[in-house]
Amino acid sequence: MKTTEDNSVGIVQTQTIRVVEQEEPLQLDCGKTLAPIDVAYETYGTLNEKGDNVILICHALSGNAHVAGINNPDDKKPGWWDNMVGPGKSIDTNKYYVICSNFLGGCSGTTGPGSENPTTSRPYGLDFPIITIADMVRVQKLFLDKLGIKGLLAVIGGSIGGMQVLQWTILYPDFMKAAIPIATTTHLGAQSIAFDAVGRNAILADPNFSGGRYTSENSPSHGLAIARMIGHITYLSEKGMREKFGRELRNSSSYNYDLNSEFAVETYLDYQGQSFVERFDANSYLYITKASDYFDLKNGNNSLSEAFAKAKCRFLVISFTSDWLFTPEQSKTIVNALVANGKDASFCDIYSPYGHDAFLLEAETLGSFISGFLESAFQPVHQKLESTPCPRVDYEVIESLIEPGSSVLDIGCGEGALLANLIADKNIKGEGIELEEKLVLNCVRRGLPIIQHDIEEGLENYADKSYDYIILSQTLQTVKNTEKVLSELMRVGKKVIVSFPNFAYWRCRLQLLLEGKAPVTKQLPYKWYNSSNIHCLSLKDFEEFCEKLSIRIEGKIPLTKASLSPVKFAPNFFAEQVIYITSKE
Amino acid sequence: MKTTEDNSVGIVQTQTIRVVEQEEPLQLDCGKTLAPIDVAYETYGTLNEKGDNVILICHALSGNAHVAGINNPDDKKPGWWDNMVGPGKSIDTNKYYVICSNFLGGCSGTTGPGSENPTTSRPYGLDFPIITIADMVRVQKLFLDKLGIKGLLAVIGGSIGGMQVLQWTILYPDFMKAAIPIATTTHLGAQSIAFDAVGRNAILADPNFSGGRYTSENSPSHGLAIARMIGHITYLSEKGMREKFGRELRNSSSYNYDLNSEFAVETYLDYQGQSFVERFDANSYLYITKASDYFDLKNGNNSLSEAFAKAKCRFLVISFTSDWLFTPEQSKTIVNALVANGKDASFCDIYSPYGHDAFLLEAETLGSFISGFLESAFQPVHQKLESTPCPRVDYEVIESLIEPGSSVLDIGCGEGALLANLIADKNIKGEGIELEEKLVLNCVRRGLPIIQHDIEEGLENYADKSYDYIILSQTLQTVKNTEKVLSELMRVGKKVIVSFPNFAYWRCRLQLLLEGKAPVTKQLPYKWYNSSNIHCLSLKDFEEFCEKLSIRIEGKIPLTKASLSPVKFAPNFFAEQVIYITSKE
Repeated sequence: MKTTEDNSVGIVQTQTIRVVEQEEPLQLDCGKTLAPIDVAYETYGTLNEKGDNVILICHALSGNAHVAGINNPDDKKPGWWDNMVGPGKSIDTNKYYVICSNFLGGCSGTTGPGSENPTTSRPYGLDFPIITIADMVRVQKLFLDKLGIKGLLAVIGGSIGGMQVLQWTILYPDFMKAAIPIATTTHLGAQSIAFDAVGRNAILADPNFSGGRYTSENSPSHGLAIARMIGHITYLSEKGMREKFGRELRNSSSYNYDLNSEFAVETYLDYQGQSFVERFDANSYLYITKASDYFDLKNGNNSLSEAFAKAKCRFLVISFTSDWLFTPEQSKTIVNALVANGKDASFCDIYSPYGHDAFLLEAETLGSFISGFLESAFQPVHQKLESTPCPRVDYEVIESLIEPGSSVLDIGCGEGALLANLIADKNIKGEGIELEEKLVLNCVRRGLPIIQHDIEEGLENYADKSYDYIILSQTLQTVKNTEKVLSELMRVGKKVIVSFPNFAYWRCRLQLLLEGKAPVTKQLPYKWYNSSNIHCLSLKDFEEFCEKLSIRIEGKIPLTKASLSPVKFAPNFFAEQVIYITSKE
Repeated sequence: MKTTEDNSVGIVQTQTIRVVEQEEPLQLDCGKTLAPIDVAYETYGTLNEKGDNVILICHALSGNAHVAGINNPDDKKPGWWDNMVGPGKSIDTNKYYVICSNFLGGCSGTTGPGSENPTTSRPYGLDFPIITIADMVRVQKLFLDKLGIKGLLAVIGGSIGGMQVLQWTILYPDFMKAAIPIATTTHLGAQSIAFDAVGRNAILADPNFSGGRYTSENSPSHGLAIARMIGHITYLSEKGMREKFGRELRNSSSYNYDLNSEFAVETYLDYQGQSFVERFDANSYLYITKASDYFDLKNGNNSLSEAFAKAKCRFLVISFTSDWLFTPEQSKTIVNALVANGKDASFCDIYSPYGHDAFLLEAETLGSFISGFLESAFQPVHQKLESTPCPRVDYEVIESLIEPGSSVLDIGCGEGALLANLIADKNIKGEGIELEEKLVLNCVRRGLPIIQHDIEEGLENYADKSYDYIILSQTLQTVKNTEKVLSELMRVGKKVIVSFPNFAYWRCRLQLLLEGKAPVTKQLPYKWYNSSNIHCLSLKDFEEFCEKLSIRIEGKIPLTKASLSPVKFAPNFFAEQVIYITSKE
């Protein structure tokens, strides 16, 4: 990378600032106090006049304050998220003032176990108190206060950085407009704790560790390298490793028949372990992984949902499909707790083969989500869809049925056209559910709360009657678990608006009767073998089904394909499609 | 466990036998030779007169020859597969003569790096030659020869034991009737090699390792414990660990805020590491994991399929759904290679939450598969289904269409009723594909080659025109990727017999026409919302589709529900179901 590259922030200096003075120590979660505390940080871009363009980035285990650009002209590698942060990049330093600080306990300038213990004038070593993610966030807040920052547009971070993001939203709920926790979790599961524990064991068992009082010449480098190797395996996906390394041998075409590293993946891990040892401190590794193991956002609350009750900002939660360290399911747990609180939450599980490391590698896709979301948080966009290429009659009718100011959940909302119109025209509180990543991105860009979710799984975390309207438009006939899904909608919505094509439309009847073939019409345009419509139902079928499930039909609007006026006569024969307004006690 | 327990083999002695004399050393894959070689083993049950009831069990990394029963009255724990081997158990010692030997390189009696090197009169240590899985199997063969065993009914093993099983089938293809490789692979992927490599690194970096010349008082126990901990994580599933340990703390209700082990999963791993160190040798660990990393069944062949060409026995391949060390996909690779060779192969991916360890824990399910398969291999069962509770007209008609002695693949074969009848009545070579575990088990019990597979994924590894007939009975209307699936069947089968319910049957037409409802008939008995039929098609629809795909219709048998005589007049109107015989060049 050249320093003169157009979209680089260029040369940046890491600065250090004292945020906790010796005289006023910080109270830590463990019960001990700590002072003084210095914080190393970098900033990019310019604080605007209103001071409302600040983005805080929280780094992960092996990261530091050096996010973007280079520290001096000879640097061969830029900061750890340079592909994301810079002028014109996804986190655009032409627009935003971006800050990142090395976290408490780190080894890149902020006070940590390698810092001088003022009472002994030696490095703390294991005398450094055990810290938590919340302690890290408190220090970040004190640091921002010192810089005179009054509030954040957004706080963003992946992995352990994402834990800090989550902690920020409930420790200082009034301080940010938006939060983007990426590839993270509210708590580690047993498997992740296990991997961390084995890594710590390797460090502690290294004879050079000497109770944490090692010197840089004689550090527990074997133990730290092994910890890093273990970690590295968990950052990649099985598939990613298979495609990158397979069973390739590094320097030979056949086995050496000795115990040395010879598979490419072995020498890669050796290298990762070795290079980590050169830039990281073993004591910091112990403290940070312990903080990560201890992190449990619901601590002190009865449930995660109760913990999130305090949060006020908008959320964009991101996971990656192949991440097995902090899994998509763990991100869904975050989303579920936000949804249960009625928070403004969006979620996407981005397809990626890169495992946990995807948050560093999937710059393009991740960047498009982040930039879209930041834009909508910074300058709320005009919501309405300017022009619809092929207007849908049922959308217009459905819009006419919704009371202004009500809350609406649109299932299978696509790119959010109906929701956007409802927000613009009727000032509703609108949210969407959609399965397809591309469509989810379009909703995010439009500033719509959109959750990537398969409706077949139900709406478990949505409270009873939490929406005035739920819309299921032209989707019922493609749903597999019809009964379960419809029951869930009835539970969550005060009214449920359902539209679907009428299989008993006269053209269908005649095609089957006279031609002896599965019907193909404008509303049912697919052949039997390529249709996504897995159920054939008529108005009568639906009404019988409603009776069976004790669903009340409050209204029924049979329509043809093109006209807004309802079909009056023999609707089950003459309607091509139908809209029902239903409800259930 | 009591020693007097009815279904235990009781007290067993591990015996040792010299299989390679000093004067006639064994040639190893690495190019070196080894002598002498002693083998430790146990046997259970009695060799029958014909000598055809011998089962060889191959053990995994940390196992040994002690499979079942106890070695002395004070033993608290029985052998490692005691839940599977014993009188009346799945591997029934009343019927079979069961043998297990500690493998070459092990540390439980068979010659390994801890044995005395005759040239130095000291333990080999790292002077022990690098061994391979094939070397282990060669020693097992020499050992069986020594015992006078002339052939095996079956060779069975899980994990590294499964690698030995696979190796057996191609090294000594004439020596066994059946092979059961469980939770295994033909080669390790990059991720598994990586975990092994980090474990070896931990041992090699332990200062006590001393180039492999450690004493038992001063062994690399820290390194070996860490290797074992890493291994242990990979033996469990994420879900299994979550359910067993979660975030539970061992001795406290709140965090200790120190660096000691406190999560239950941490103390569990500490214990696993510690107890392993007491019973296992670090050098053996290095050699065995290296042999496992080196294992690649296709070595020396152009493809895995070419490697398996030599195999002659019947195979039952078993994987477990949550095994992420040796995954179901890796077992499917084995099955695909067998299928590509036209071998007699059965496969089931058994549902289990226990990860790789399931091969030790799922005694009941695994046992029912193994016992059923062994029985059918030992005493071939009468194949025909004695009585069918509700006879299916289409089955009878299909049976009448099949030429005697032909090869038949039945897609969605259920419990194999049609196949069993075809084998009994027409002496066909029959194989089945079925998705449901229970039905797969019934086929295994019946001695049918049955592969658990989702037909939606196609038939990638089946050669072109490799079956005289493929049967797709009453399944087409439930298939999602109709075009792909039908094209695959046409490629693999010389003739494809397809049957499905006729959606244009007159009752269907009238129901839609007159009642305006999705048809419900005897052949289409489900309501629109609970039907597994996701496509509606008529004879006319199918024929148009065949024309589009250039499929030739060689025969057409329209039927009513109950009668064997075809519908002659206006079949698309009067037939309830239909059978087509099709083909494609």
